[in-house]
Amino acid sequence: MNNFNNEGYSIIESLISIFTIDKGKVKVLLFRKKDEPYKGYWMLPGGILKANESLEESISDYVVENCGFSNLYTEQCHVFSDVERIPDKRVVAITCIGLIDSISVELKQEIPDSIESEWFNISAIPKTIYDHGMIIDKSVDCLRERIINSNVLKILFPSDFTLPELQKVYEQILGKELDRRNFRKKFINLGLIEDTGYKNEGYTGRPAKLYRFKENIEERDLF
Amino acid sequence: MNNFNNEGYSIIESLISIFTIDKGKVKVLLFRKKDEPYKGYWMLPGGILKANESLEESISDYVVENCGFSNLYTEQCHVFSDVERIPDKRVVAITCIGLIDSISVELKQEIPDSIESEWFNISAIPKTIYDHGMIIDKSVDCLRERIINSNVLKILFPSDFTLPELQKVYEQILGKELDRRNFRKKFINLGLIEDTGYKNEGYTGRPAKLYRFKENIEERDLF
Repeated sequence: MNNFNNEGYSIIESLISIFTIDKGKVKVLLFRKKDEPYKGYWMLPGGILKANESLEESISDYVVENCGFSNLYTEQCHVFSDVERIPDKRVVAITCIGLIDSISVELKQEIPDSIESEWFNISAIPKTIYDHGMIIDKSVDCLRERIINSNVLKILFPSDFTLPELQKVYEQILGKELDRRNFRKKFINLGLIEDTGYKNEGYTGRPAKLYRFKENIEERDLF
Repeated sequence: MNNFNNEGYSIIESLISIFTIDKGKVKVLLFRKKDEPYKGYWMLPGGILKANESLEESISDYVVENCGFSNLYTEQCHVFSDVERIPDKRVVAITCIGLIDSISVELKQEIPDSIESEWFNISAIPKTIYDHGMIIDKSVDCLRERIINSNVLKILFPSDFTLPELQKVYEQILGKELDRRNFRKKFINLGLIEDTGYKNEGYTGRPAKLYRFKENIEERDLF
């Protein structure tokens, strides 16, 4: 079993799907590939895992250096190891999701000029290299599991929000429309959010109550 | 970014925590290490990922060959990539959980004589090599997430069971005692199980109702 030989050497790349919410839209950060093959196509940020760093260190160093985010929330998502996922090369991709709020994006984003980057709506992903489209889909699945069962959405909503705004974000991540009354009832019952006492005046339409996520949210356990 | 060089080559091992329920106890399968270092210590089944196989193929082939389980349910769990997890070697571990019912274990288990194997209670794990103890803990976490949010427990309970039996299994996986009445109420409300109409007569004490998991269980979604 512990028979290490050359046959067993693989290249590992760590890739990250960084999500944010920008004006009510769930977006993911992609970089544009600068060289052949697939020059001009879009790709997930990430790099080759070096022998002297863990996955977590690799992602963290990469994200600080190439995106300027020093406080990104990250979690492992899925390993993609199809032998032919990259032609002519054996590269295993270990993928993570990252969450950052839009205010931090504006304040801290320092992507070097040499990298062409863009935030894309998760419903409008452009042409990507290799299996990155599939990896983005899986990352949205991971995000979906997280928002149903824990409080990570709080990271994406650091400031006040209305329930319709929250519902729109859930609808994008879950990929389906939700009943407004049902959503309101279920979400308030979860006890994750509290009424701020304010309303969002000044917009068109009836002012809606503003909510915020509670400071301390316990993980929602079934038992 | 796509700058592949020798620095980036790692050995990947795929390890699997195979769980079953044996007479009401949640158990995990371990193999005994036959050679130095750590001869006699216990370890998770698994092997080196070869260049011509995906993680899923590697696990599946390994499990069929070394355990005789051809129908194991598996899911990815977590990647362990600490630089020093194995002394003097850089080995990244990609870990999975596997579930098999105890009847299939008895019928199909064909672990070769050359492998010393044993099923251990998850509350009584023996001395393991390297970080395998930590990997087993994380695997129990993965199992915990699964049993709260989906129907994978059905795989472990192919035949009828009483609610106290089910509760004991949940308590082992969750690592805490549960209130009997609360458990009963919550579990029945989930709609995952149905009354078989039978009772387990012939045991000591009052006969208890026998339940089974429903044939078609929808994933429990919050929304």
